Amino acid sequence: MAVEKSKTNNEAQIKKLIEDRPKAVRTRDSNRLMSNHAANVLLFDVVNPLQYFGSDTVKERAEEWFSLYQGPIDYKIRDLNITAGDSVAFCHYLYRASGTMLDGAKIDMWVRTTVCYRKIRGTWIVVHEHESVPFDPETGKASLDIKP
Amino acid sequence: MAVEKSKTNNEAQIKKLIEDRPKAVRTRDSNRLMSNHAANVLLFDVVNPLQYFGSDTVKERAEEWFSLYQGPIDYKIRDLNITAGDSVAFCHYLYRASGTMLDGAKIDMWVRTTVCYRKIRGTWIVVHEHESVPFDPETGKASLDIKP
Repeated sequence: MAVEKSKTNNEAQIKKLIEDRPKAVRTRDSNRLMSNHAANVLLFDVVNPLQYFGSDTVKERAEEWFSLYQGPIDYKIRDLNITAGDSVAFCHYLYRASGTMLDGAKIDMWVRTTVCYRKIRGTWIVVHEHESVPFDPETGKASLDIKP
Repeated sequence: MAVEKSKTNNEAQIKKLIEDRPKAVRTRDSNRLMSNHAANVLLFDVVNPLQYFGSDTVKERAEEWFSLYQGPIDYKIRDLNITAGDSVAFCHYLYRASGTMLDGAKIDMWVRTTVCYRKIRGTWIVVHEHESVPFDPETGKASLDIKP
C-alpha cells in the first residue's frame, strides 16, 4: 500500500513537470522550461548536432528555438506515459508544435519525446532527454508533416 | 552497502543486454535482438512512422531493416550511460551502423538511442525505445552522415 502510494506520488510529480512545459514554451520562458534539468543533462534534439551536453547549452538551444518564431509557440502534449520507481523514472509523449516563424512560414509538426529522470534530494531532475522526428528512407527528408 | 551493490548489479545486467545487441544485429537474429522486449513495447524509430507499437511490429521492423543489407551489419556502440533503480532504469548511447545495402550502396551512419526498462519478476524488460538521427533545419534532410 505504501509502495503503491509512493509510485502514484512520483508519477503525479512528473506529470506536473511535463504539464508545465506548454506554458513555458508558449511564454518563451527558458528558465521555466529548464527549471528541473540537471547541470550535466544530455539532450538528443530534433536538429543537429547529434548531442547537446549541459544545461547551459540546452538552454541556449531552447532560446534559439524560441527566437525563430514571431508570437506564441503552441505546444500540445498527447499520449503521455510515465513510469516511475523510487529514484529513477522516465516518460514519453508526442507533442504538436505550431506557430509562425519570423519569415511568415507556418510550422505545425509532431515530435516524439522521451524524458529520463533521477530523484535527487527528493526532487525529480531531468538527466537525459531525447526529441526527434523520424525520416522517410525514400527521400532522406525529415518527416516534418507526419501525423499520429 | 546493500543498496550500492544492488545498483551495481542492475547496471551490470543492463550493460550485458546492450552489449549483446551488436552480436544480434551482425547475425541478423531478430529473436536475439528482441529477447528482452515487452509485448507492449513502444518504439520511436529512426524511420517513419512516428511510432511502432508492440513486440511483433518492432520485430517485423527489425527484420525489414536486416533485409535491406547484403552481408553482415556492423553495429558499434559508443558512450553507453546506464541509470538503474530497483525497478526502473534507462540508458542511452550512440551506435554506428555500417554495411552494404542490396543495391550496393554503402551505409555508415550514427544513431542516438535511448532504452527504457522495467524490472519484471527479476528481469529487465525494454518497455520503450527511442532511436533517431537529427535533421538539418536548413535543408530539411535527415543527418545521415553526421559524426560525434
